[in-house]
Amino acid sequence: MSRTEKYLNYFLSHRNVTLQLVSKIEKENYEYKPTPTSMTTEKLVSHMLTSFYRFALVVKKGDLSAFSNNFETEAENLSDLANQITTKTVETLQSLTEEELNQTIDLTNILGMKLTGSQVLQVAMDHEIHHKGALFIYVRELGHTDLPMFVSKG
Amino acid sequence: MSRTEKYLNYFLSHRNVTLQLVSKIEKENYEYKPTPTSMTTEKLVSHMLTSFYRFALVVKKGDLSAFSNNFETEAENLSDLANQITTKTVETLQSLTEEELNQTIDLTNILGMKLTGSQVLQVAMDHEIHHKGALFIYVRELGHTDLPMFVSKG
Repeated sequence: MSRTEKYLNYFLSHRNVTLQLVSKIEKENYEYKPTPTSMTTEKLVSHMLTSFYRFALVVKKGDLSAFSNNFETEAENLSDLANQITTKTVETLQSLTEEELNQTIDLTNILGMKLTGSQVLQVAMDHEIHHKGALFIYVRELGHTDLPMFVSKG
Repeated sequence: MSRTEKYLNYFLSHRNVTLQLVSKIEKENYEYKPTPTSMTTEKLVSHMLTSFYRFALVVKKGDLSAFSNNFETEAENLSDLANQITTKTVETLQSLTEEELNQTIDLTNILGMKLTGSQVLQVAMDHEIHHKGALFIYVRELGHTDLPMFVSKG
């Protein structure tokens, strides 16, 4: 299995769980937040989706320009949005070359350090897992108790 | 930097954030849980600490025996417990050899697959980050708004 395929599988083992959680969130709860200083459910999900896609584009392009992009999407709901951005993220991950995974990218402006492409993908994974951990609480507080494991096997 | 040192730094970049969160939890809130089906704060923290230490021991020993261990500790509070178990975890991580990181470990019973030692450490990291993401919500719900980044730099 190539390194690109390994990253793709690793990404999907967590993103598939994110998608399962998102599918449980009803429109009337998009503005829900657990405390006054928390992100709303919609903001949290949107932040997770666009952040990982941006990190993947950063690795692809070798620069931070993706963090200035606005993504125009026409999604009917959060699940649609999640599926659309996941598809684009998968395509970007699938296209990554060994050179792109190995190149050094200057993230001083957002993370205070320089990292290789593959290290940027690990930061992206950690970011997804971190916010997914929070999203589990949101979804449980919205009344759902039949929840998946934090990572999907195989 | 050796692979062992890299894992140690990676571990501490997240564990130090866990320790900061734990230091904010007062004894009167150890039984707090966000929903009736959630773990209590004390259970969640204890689960995070013992799980990572067990995963590190699994890599060290090459088998799952650490998952049957009971850890006897004499800690006055959760912060003490966190510091004690973190010290033992760091010692275990520091002691790992290249052979131990490369050996295949049969985790069929708990994860349904076989993994190398270094892959087990990645599962341990993902598990820590997942539950730390949840712990952020607990701590915010306990009234704290001055919270660290999800990962500490340097």
